[in-house]
Amino acid sequence: MDLRDRSGAGLHRFADEWTGSMGVIGTSMDRRDLRLALEELYADYVGCLDDEEFERWPDFFAEQCSYSIIPRENYDRGLPLATLRCESKGMLKDRVTAVRQTSTYAPRYMRHIVSSLRVGAWQGDMLEVQANYVVLETLVDEFTRVFQSGRYLDRLVLEAGVLKFREKRCVFDSILIPNSLVFPI
Amino acid sequence: MDLRDRSGAGLHRFADEWTGSMGVIGTSMDRRDLRLALEELYADYVGCLDDEEFERWPDFFAEQCSYSIIPRENYDRGLPLATLRCESKGMLKDRVTAVRQTSTYAPRYMRHIVSSLRVGAWQGDMLEVQANYVVLETLVDEFTRVFQSGRYLDRLVLEAGVLKFREKRCVFDSILIPNSLVFPI
Amino acid sequence: MDLRDRSGAGLHRFADEWTGSMGVIGTSMDRRDLRLALEELYADYVGCLDDEEFERWPDFFAEQCSYSIIPRENYDRGLPLATLRCESKGMLKDRVTAVRQTSTYAPRYMRHIVSSLRVGAWQGDMLEVQANYVVLETLVDEFTRVFQSGRYLDRLVLEAGVLKFREKRCVFDSILIPNSLVFPI
Repeated sequence: MDLRDRSGAGLHRFADEWTGSMGVIGTSMDRRDLRLALEELYADYVGCLDDEEFERWPDFFAEQCSYSIIPRENYDRGLPLATLRCESKGMLKDRVTAVRQTSTYAPRYMRHIVSSLRVGAWQGDMLEVQANYVVLETLVDEFTRVFQSGRYLDRLVLEAGVLKFREKRCVFDSILIPNSLVFPI
Repeated sequence: MDLRDRSGAGLHRFADEWTGSMGVIGTSMDRRDLRLALEELYADYVGCLDDEEFERWPDFFAEQCSYSIIPRENYDRGLPLATLRCESKGMLKDRVTAVRQTSTYAPRYMRHIVSSLRVGAWQGDMLEVQANYVVLETLVDEFTRVFQSGRYLDRLVLEAGVLKFREKRCVFDSILIPNSLVFPI
Repeated sequence: MDLRDRSGAGLHRFADEWTGSMGVIGTSMDRRDLRLALEELYADYVGCLDDEEFERWPDFFAEQCSYSIIPRENYDRGLPLATLRCESKGMLKDRVTAVRQTSTYAPRYMRHIVSSLRVGAWQGDMLEVQANYVVLETLVDEFTRVFQSGRYLDRLVLEAGVLKFREKRCVFDSILIPNSLVFPI
């Protein structure tokens, strides 16, 4: 039941068929292929996090990338303050190291539910995608509860034919977060 | 990051390719196209509500339409009593006005998660679609919580080649609703 | 609004087109068809459970099959202990009879939200599929709440051209379950 080796080998891999024909993306058939490739990419991303395979999490990002977790109120007001911000792939890897080596948090399970993928238009070589998410959290000997709901506001690029996050913003619907924000969203 | 102009311009727009060939909808390939068009339509619908772009909410409905929010118990027993019912596009617009001008509710964020789209058969020019939903609600300075779970029981038609709701029923799983029902589901 | 007769007649039915060409499954187009067939299968499965049409639940399984509900901790440690285990289609049918005839549980509504389908490779005639789920539960006169989150770890086969569960494991994220585990997951 090890699906790990599928990373980059799944549907979104077939994106490289498109690189040569970026101009025709937007025709009906191509947009359907693109939507399915994105569905698989987001499923893979979620599987990586919920299975705690954090070491491969930075691979979902482009060489030049940013990742942030932002309260919706700040986002809506145009305020830059983020709860977490990584401005490079190196910072994502540092984050993984911190998660692995920090033992000051109680063990917990996370479960992402992602839906309502909204695929925007290509802006040059950049694709805008939004999706809704809810993250459930389960601490040992406690009931499963809602950890955070929100929206992914993403920009993707093709890198060697594979869709990667150039920018990923997790805009969550609250100020409060139950317990500390330990794992990536 | 403005996806608003995609309304009606996305995949479900391509429905007009089908109008002339309604007879052949139901073949394997067409049903797959239809499913993807519906996925995008529901994603758009959810994005509209969660981004509080209520003014474009009535545009998801056909000229002749109805919208209702019904407790599952009433629905299962065949009782007509609905928590909310709009019987025309005008009433949907009135509802939007009420939401915008009524300031007697506490500010809150809503987040819809929709899954398990079930696409029925065309009954003449009408398509039956079901989907599961859960709506999360976040009030200021409170944790995100489950607001309502339920099922969309929808009937869609093609209007000028675009899929629109002829009838949308939100059958929710409870009698109780935390706080008042302010926003559309 | 009766979608019941669609069971096995929907997209995943078209799987029989593939039986003769299993060798070419894995090409780009086929994988997209497969993904859509699985999306519809899981939607149907969820609809069956949430509409309490338990009598058709065993039909989602192959003649030779197993079904289990396992705490994640046990699964991760390789411990065999399951909260519920059925080792044959007969046991699934017995389970349905038990649900129908056992009146010792309080009435409740269930609602499944399934997302992030991860489609693995065919291992011979067996297909590995994973998906995330959260089940919401609503008891009479109570608010809707999270019942259980987890992951489906499934193995599917084609039986007479229809995708069926050969093995379905519901690995849930907690030790605790609110109330008793009455209905299938």
